[in-house]
Amino acid sequence: MFAPVYLDHNATTPLTPVVLDAMLPWLSQQFGNASSRHEYGRAARRAIDEARNRVAVAVGAHPTEIVFASGGSEANNLFIKGAAACLKPGLLAVSAIEHPCVIKSAEQLVRRGWRLHKVAVDADGRIDADDYQNVLRQQVPKLVSIMLANNETGVVQDVAALAAQARSAGACFHTDAVQAVGKIAVDFRTLNAAGVQAMTLSAHKIGGPKGAAALVLDKRVDLEPLIAGGGHERGLRSGTENVAAIVGFGVACELAVRDLAGTTARLNALRNRLEQGLSAMGAALFGAAAERLPNTLYFAFADIDGETLVGVLDRAGYAVASGAACSSANPEPSHVLGAMGVAPELARGAVRVSLGAANTAEQIEDFLLTLQDALAKLRRLTAIAI
Amino acid sequence: MFAPVYLDHNATTPLTPVVLDAMLPWLSQQFGNASSRHEYGRAARRAIDEARNRVAVAVGAHPTEIVFASGGSEANNLFIKGAAACLKPGLLAVSAIEHPCVIKSAEQLVRRGWRLHKVAVDADGRIDADDYQNVLRQQVPKLVSIMLANNETGVVQDVAALAAQARSAGACFHTDAVQAVGKIAVDFRTLNAAGVQAMTLSAHKIGGPKGAAALVLDKRVDLEPLIAGGGHERGLRSGTENVAAIVGFGVACELAVRDLAGTTARLNALRNRLEQGLSAMGAALFGAAAERLPNTLYFAFADIDGETLVGVLDRAGYAVASGAACSSANPEPSHVLGAMGVAPELARGAVRVSLGAANTAEQIEDFLLTLQDALAKLRRLTAIAI
Repeated sequence: MFAPVYLDHNATTPLTPVVLDAMLPWLSQQFGNASSRHEYGRAARRAIDEARNRVAVAVGAHPTEIVFASGGSEANNLFIKGAAACLKPGLLAVSAIEHPCVIKSAEQLVRRGWRLHKVAVDADGRIDADDYQNVLRQQVPKLVSIMLANNETGVVQDVAALAAQARSAGACFHTDAVQAVGKIAVDFRTLNAAGVQAMTLSAHKIGGPKGAAALVLDKRVDLEPLIAGGGHERGLRSGTENVAAIVGFGVACELAVRDLAGTTARLNALRNRLEQGLSAMGAALFGAAAERLPNTLYFAFADIDGETLVGVLDRAGYAVASGAACSSANPEPSHVLGAMGVAPELARGAVRVSLGAANTAEQIEDFLLTLQDALAKLRRLTAIAI
Repeated sequence: MFAPVYLDHNATTPLTPVVLDAMLPWLSQQFGNASSRHEYGRAARRAIDEARNRVAVAVGAHPTEIVFASGGSEANNLFIKGAAACLKPGLLAVSAIEHPCVIKSAEQLVRRGWRLHKVAVDADGRIDADDYQNVLRQQVPKLVSIMLANNETGVVQDVAALAAQARSAGACFHTDAVQAVGKIAVDFRTLNAAGVQAMTLSAHKIGGPKGAAALVLDKRVDLEPLIAGGGHERGLRSGTENVAAIVGFGVACELAVRDLAGTTARLNALRNRLEQGLSAMGAALFGAAAERLPNTLYFAFADIDGETLVGVLDRAGYAVASGAACSSANPEPSHVLGAMGVAPELARGAVRVSLGAANTAEQIEDFLLTLQDALAKLRRLTAIAI
């Protein structure tokens, strides 16, 4: 198989080989339903319990606070709609740069009588402190959801401080930490002490399999299940557990936090070199003045279409993203860049590079050369077309 | 690993080795996010499209009618709550023997202004024609959900006829076919012509992996997504697709319908021998007068606790179920047997054997001998205790 250099780790990550090894027994001899009361079932239950412990330890939570789900979108929907279902309709505040699964869940609540405030961000993609203060003081939201790190820009919010303010105002606070785990330190105990009551994690962003995720949930928060049924996951998420994926998630979490400082430093150095090269080529860099994930770089060239550039780079052997890889059917420029006040024309040029553990300095140098060629080629084509 | 003889295929099935083989590339080199617009993404998208075709062909549906989900519970919740969200609250009718994920979803709707009628069944577990006619004529439900085959008894309903009646009364009709596929012929085109507008399938009941399922949906039915977000699956189910599981689901569907007649005949012969042996031992057989799945046998001995018998058989090397393996925390006797009018004392004795392709005549003979020993042992213990 043709294997382009993969620079799109915020979309999904390769499954780490030792994670797959840990999963394989659960995809062959150990196939039991974890609810069955025979040896096949008990073995599956023990594996899930062990995975729950691993996930909990990795993010500083208690195992009983982990609610497994099939993916980050499900976990975010579970919190937003599940918490809302236990409250009388009121105000819900989410940042304007949330993942679509948070924004669309919030919009579904509007049809059920809720009001929605999208918290503004500044030009660098950080929560606008004034807008946030205003909504907390004047409108008193019941629920607040603000992501820990943005999937497109990589911009990190001071979620502990934002949660503390939300809690003071009486709101229940959730954070989508899907992009943060494995890239920066994430500790639920610390965040919970500050006021974060729920947090979303996903396996496939950290070297784990697609099909496993978790809502980390303070047990004092009431939640109606999104998927009701047999009463799995303390009644909060029914359905036969995906044992293999949950086992893989546990191992992936453990690996993701092991030597986090080393990984972070290495990715940061690669990203900085990339950023330096792009700046020299005249790229606009998004969110670069804010604290960001060490692996993420989001940029545009004013005269180059992002989709087109991604296509040229793909054919040249580099897999990068033209924005959030959440829906291939969405031709609109990024809502994240829109919220940051980036003009649509520039936003249409947006390209995201997101690095992973396997990327090397040599790949970055080659990528910069390839990008330079691609830009020259596209500019020649544009000149001919004009 | 100690490998007891597995006789619990209605709970979950072993992953067929060729299904795992088909999944493995998507758990290693081909790890892309199907929404990504580079080669990794496009390869994943093609694999999902191919799987969608395989599932559609296997159940006589069109590929565009397949909505992938993470499991049968999710797909059932998606239909029940998703269809209800597009209607004004009214009456919902589900059979009294539905899987908990249907019944609990329906009960959630009651909290949103819906009324719920649980359609009665007769002593053999078949829909009570009078009760069904009455609810259709007098109360005019907007939604009806009746399972094709019951997970506990294996009793098969005449869903085509039931759907035709529901459609005449103006109701939208859904069937949970999770237990039927791969055991009896299931053709959505035929069922749809009769009036079935939505049908649930699950991969892990037919030799596929946990983590993949589908709602087969007539496109004329409006549905609000349960998991909102990036707009995957025609906007009906957002979230990064579990590519490997979906690929496995496709292959499992293809295998499940290949030589269905042969499999059915073989399982039926094994089940009948088992039934004959159990009758000779004095077991009560549930649903035996009704049309049943060929692999399922549900029985009780009046003087023997089902849980205890399952435990003894487990230690003797046979994995069977004491009821629906949907929640290990549920000590209540089966709601299915309750609806059939079985006394709670007898229902507490219920044990389910559900056969699969790998089971042999020798295993059945050995199981009958082991069961006889187990009964004798338990009766001796009871006699001593008294």
